[in-house]
Amino acid sequence: MSIILADPSALSHDQLEEGTAFAPRFDAHGLITAVAQDEAGRVLMVAHMNAEALRLTVDTGEVHYYSRSRKALWKKGETSGEVQKLIRLATDCDQDVVLLTVEQTGRGAACHTGRKSCFYRVLEDGHLADTGEPRLFDPAKVYPKA
Amino acid sequence: MSIILADPSALSHDQLEEGTAFAPRFDAHGLITAVAQDEAGRVLMVAHMNAEALRLTVDTGEVHYYSRSRKALWKKGETSGEVQKLIRLATDCDQDVVLLTVEQTGRGAACHTGRKSCFYRVLEDGHLADTGEPRLFDPAKVYPKA
Repeated sequence: MSIILADPSALSHDQLEEGTAFAPRFDAHGLITAVAQDEAGRVLMVAHMNAEALRLTVDTGEVHYYSRSRKALWKKGETSGEVQKLIRLATDCDQDVVLLTVEQTGRGAACHTGRKSCFYRVLEDGHLADTGEPRLFDPAKVYPKA
Repeated sequence: MSIILADPSALSHDQLEEGTAFAPRFDAHGLITAVAQDEAGRVLMVAHMNAEALRLTVDTGEVHYYSRSRKALWKKGETSGEVQKLIRLATDCDQDVVLLTVEQTGRGAACHTGRKSCFYRVLEDGHLADTGEPRLFDPAKVYPKA
């Protein structure tokens, strides 16, 4: 069954923030920010979804995004095999973000660089320091040359 | 000391993704998405920062955002007392998101509804179900009437 996305502009402020209608507030480009984390709380990646990606994610249980650079629907793991299985989908108070709890399948790498998480660098004394996150695959072998 | 934000357009793809220069990719509105989570991995909120908010966050150790609705710099907790102390700042592969690990001070509520996290509703059978997250403060008593 396909989920019904309510129209946020038809809801009162209270309905939007406290109600049961799922009314994602897509931006002017038709996109909503999606944060994916694993069950342990590790934030794996942040990307965007359009309505179709959101519907497909809920309907299939496999996470789909919308690639702004490629301007195309993007099933996560389609090329790399690193499919994300949806465990839970939450939204925030004003429904302009979705938070996905996922099982990262494949080699466990959400990032196109081959690392588990895209957040492998932290700010230290004004510069980025690599946290030493290992590469679980070699991107040169996984992605075809552009 | 104030952090130096490098110009991402002056960096190669490899420098942007693997280098040590902190070069946040602000969008056309001068904003970057900021995800705040606590040390336990709970995602508390997602908001935006401009360069000034990012600098102030790093320089003062207290999280600042930019409010798109109010079009103003916004020190988190300025009105509510729910200040966020910065523990760690990470960025993602293409540097268009910052991930903040924070200590949520005050009553421990990151959300303006008085709840710990803005993500207090999950999608179940097409509708949002309240997870029962308690309110740690009464918003009507904390925020002045608009």
